[in-house]
Amino acid sequence: MESLYVIKIGGNIIDDELLLAAFLKKFAAIRSKKILVHGGGKLATRLAEKLGIPQQMIDGRRITDAETLKIVTMVYAGYINKHIVARLQSLQCNAAGICGADGNSILSHKREKAGIDYGFAGDIDRVNSNWFKQLLENGLALVVAPITHDGKNQLLNTNADTIAQEIAKALSAAFEVSLIYSFEKPGVLLDVENENSLIDVLHAGYYKELKESNKIFAGMIPKLDNAFAAVSQGVKKVVIGKGEELDQLITGNSGTTIGHA
Amino acid sequence: MESLYVIKIGGNIIDDELLLAAFLKKFAAIRSKKILVHGGGKLATRLAEKLGIPQQMIDGRRITDAETLKIVTMVYAGYINKHIVARLQSLQCNAAGICGADGNSILSHKREKAGIDYGFAGDIDRVNSNWFKQLLENGLALVVAPITHDGKNQLLNTNADTIAQEIAKALSAAFEVSLIYSFEKPGVLLDVENENSLIDVLHAGYYKELKESNKIFAGMIPKLDNAFAAVSQGVKKVVIGKGEELDQLITGNSGTTIGHA
Repeated sequence: MESLYVIKIGGNIIDDELLLAAFLKKFAAIRSKKILVHGGGKLATRLAEKLGIPQQMIDGRRITDAETLKIVTMVYAGYINKHIVARLQSLQCNAAGICGADGNSILSHKREKAGIDYGFAGDIDRVNSNWFKQLLENGLALVVAPITHDGKNQLLNTNADTIAQEIAKALSAAFEVSLIYSFEKPGVLLDVENENSLIDVLHAGYYKELKESNKIFAGMIPKLDNAFAAVSQGVKKVVIGKGEELDQLITGNSGTTIGHA
Repeated sequence: MESLYVIKIGGNIIDDELLLAAFLKKFAAIRSKKILVHGGGKLATRLAEKLGIPQQMIDGRRITDAETLKIVTMVYAGYINKHIVARLQSLQCNAAGICGADGNSILSHKREKAGIDYGFAGDIDRVNSNWFKQLLENGLALVVAPITHDGKNQLLNTNADTIAQEIAKALSAAFEVSLIYSFEKPGVLLDVENENSLIDVLHAGYYKELKESNKIFAGMIPKLDNAFAAVSQGVKKVVIGKGEELDQLITGNSGTTIGHA
């Protein structure tokens, strides 16, 4: 099967024009089929502040009221998405930017959780893998903004990590998918304070062991649980590491690689 | 040849949620291949005001400084574009929203005109008709935001009327293209104060005659010159009329139809 890279870009890179330019140069150089999923960084928060729209976060998730939904749609699907696409085009990488409403690519429903009203936040139901395949086969790199829709005229703010994971799983029937999460740290660390304590390869058994002995940083657990779920659902491997080292994350010379034992 | 409708939607409809919903219902009902090109209405101006970014207009064109470019990219390619796409999806019309950077669909250059600095305003060089064809053949309706790019990492604010015209011309080799301009008036009027003075059909000879006797409202002349240019470059017909009557503009029962004698 042909290779496909699904790469989630972290907010720290989106917020830094120079880091973003360097990252996109490495992304453009990937010769395989590729999809970039981006979040929003601090731009949406900053715009909301300027417009005097108070932002509320619960467990690291933005509460998306109607005004905030407008802002994230503008910033994520408009400014950031097209900014990235224009940059990739200038690097001779023919890219197309989409959100989950375009081509009905990602269908979701409004999150409902007892006691918490997340507002217009989406939980994903279905990825339209046919349309992704068509676009990839037309030779395009795809840039996906974290806005989905419910099919009933409601756009929904959606977690970019989850979008990357769902796209990776949905396309693993057609491609050999590597899912890459780029973030601030060099990968999964045995000691979160020590960047030299990187775990190169994390298999399910070792992960269970580390989790049971409380050696995994709590904030990483949801990410890692998701990574193992993806691998057990057809994704070939998940790599977590520094966005600045994207080229080495691709070759496996950097970051933490997650797979079966 | 198969029919294709390229429809420019006016700002008056974009600014009115009810009119927009009714318009998109009629757009969704068109059974032929179709492309919707939208401008920005008053939303961009309003957002610029809220953010304290002064807006300057020369000859009806917005001067696009760097901050204004960010705003129009957010509002046109983000909010309005995805808003329309989500609405069309809810009407079972599978649509995809793009700007000129996506798929390298519309390449332009920064406008240079002696004495006037329009800022980041684009004049179109090339429409990537192959990509438009691929998307249309995949069964998608396209929604085009008036933002293009220069291939060198610069997004450019671009007149939506011109985008509609250039797309219509570029696709006329592959489709029988009808170009429809929806705006506030029922079409070309002999007396701009009298909506009953509509000209049903305007041929080149009659237009010349009317122009020479100063019977055409000055503001309509650039639009009409462009319409005749499009028709002489392969577009089957151009229809100008009220957006509220889109269904009748399609069938030719409303508006002014422009073609060869």
